[in-house]
Amino acid sequence: MNCNTPTDIVFSFTGFATRGGGTADHHDGWGIAFFEGVGVRLFVDHEPAVASPVAALIKSYPIKSKNVIAHIRKATQGEVALENCHPFVRELWGRYWVFAHNGDVPAFQPELDGPYRPVGNTDSERAFCYLLQQLRQRFGDQRPTLLVLTQALQELAAQIAVHGTFNMMLSDGSALFVHCSTQLHYVIRQYPFSTAQLSDQDMIVDFSQVTDRSDRVAVIVTAPLTQNENWIALQPGQFMVFIDGCPLPHAA
Amino acid sequence: MNCNTPTDIVFSFTGFATRGGGTADHHDGWGIAFFEGVGVRLFVDHEPAVASPVAALIKSYPIKSKNVIAHIRKATQGEVALENCHPFVRELWGRYWVFAHNGDVPAFQPELDGPYRPVGNTDSERAFCYLLQQLRQRFGDQRPTLLVLTQALQELAAQIAVHGTFNMMLSDGSALFVHCSTQLHYVIRQYPFSTAQLSDQDMIVDFSQVTDRSDRVAVIVTAPLTQNENWIALQPGQFMVFIDGCPLPHAA
Repeated sequence: MNCNTPTDIVFSFTGFATRGGGTADHHDGWGIAFFEGVGVRLFVDHEPAVASPVAALIKSYPIKSKNVIAHIRKATQGEVALENCHPFVRELWGRYWVFAHNGDVPAFQPELDGPYRPVGNTDSERAFCYLLQQLRQRFGDQRPTLLVLTQALQELAAQIAVHGTFNMMLSDGSALFVHCSTQLHYVIRQYPFSTAQLSDQDMIVDFSQVTDRSDRVAVIVTAPLTQNENWIALQPGQFMVFIDGCPLPHAA
Repeated sequence: MNCNTPTDIVFSFTGFATRGGGTADHHDGWGIAFFEGVGVRLFVDHEPAVASPVAALIKSYPIKSKNVIAHIRKATQGEVALENCHPFVRELWGRYWVFAHNGDVPAFQPELDGPYRPVGNTDSERAFCYLLQQLRQRFGDQRPTLLVLTQALQELAAQIAVHGTFNMMLSDGSALFVHCSTQLHYVIRQYPFSTAQLSDQDMIVDFSQVTDRSDRVAVIVTAPLTQNENWIALQPGQFMVFIDGCPLPHAA
């Protein structure tokens, strides 16, 4: 989720978490990271999201954030363990970077000779460490402009995606970068707001009752979360950047 | 807390969290990190610990861990914000490192030219980044032996402590390193276990009912948490390492 004003994710997370062992078989852990300014709250659990007391907290306690990345895991590479739960977090250029991946890239075995090493044994964390290593190699100690950064990430994501399936999300709290390898959808919720019905649970929300006119929220997800909203499918190979709830045109 | 078997911290955390706006004025946020194997669960909140729904979760949900670092903050340097809440986490040598600091070292302004940069604006996070930078500079890509690592950390902690007050705890999940600048106490709970009475709340636990004979737990804290246990005060300048609930003799 990427928004122009701090927004809680209780509604979307409720539908999403149901897929963690409920309406879908992604039961090998889950995680969610909320940016609050430059700070991050990260919750990870190797229990299925439907059964996790930590997930229950998130569904009941509205944490407001402009950038949220959540993940429910179906282990394909790496065992079921806390250190293998997405999202992963590292620091680069004095900002936290949060990363989640759907798919697998087992054949991607880059040399990691920089300061970022995987703690667990997933191909996903390895790919994340590689991304950050390459950013540091290219740009040294200074974060480049958004445009230059976006081009670099797009190029790196395409490079990794050659080795398998690389649907991914990445954020440093100022923007949300996404790459679609096979499946990714987004919806923009903005004025005039309407009512949405979760696909995975009997839950409806009337966004016009809980928003201001100027609010804008982008939700990006593997498969659409609601039945009656205008979800747009990304194309294979497509890279997008969301800022303030808006897709950046140059990257669309 | 450092133990030889995964142990929950519900009892000690209940007393400790009361000091976050209850029996003491440390009300500017709090945090707790639990190692589970090499994975870490980090909970941080800029709400006072006594009022935080996340703290309520921790008091009711027994997360078992061999290494836990918790902190309640009284802001001296850096504003009240999520990114300034301890503990801080970074990755080095493919392991997460968790750090918390009590005291302040405002005059310590080292050059940070390695890969670790503070995200917030506390002197504590700056000192932590410096510690990791120096470890990487000295030992490169390979973690040294525990003895060599301990000597390096002891030396670095003493160097930082010159600039102010540096009571600190650091763990990579395999050991807990502590440095006492002004105030730090520890207790070892082991067979035969007895009953302990919290100092900050009306709560008693009979450890003999909830432990096995072989369990051993070290609790290290600024001020003793219980009234009737044998808390040992560290000396100013003392550096200690705890492994499996035991202080290492060579570092005592």
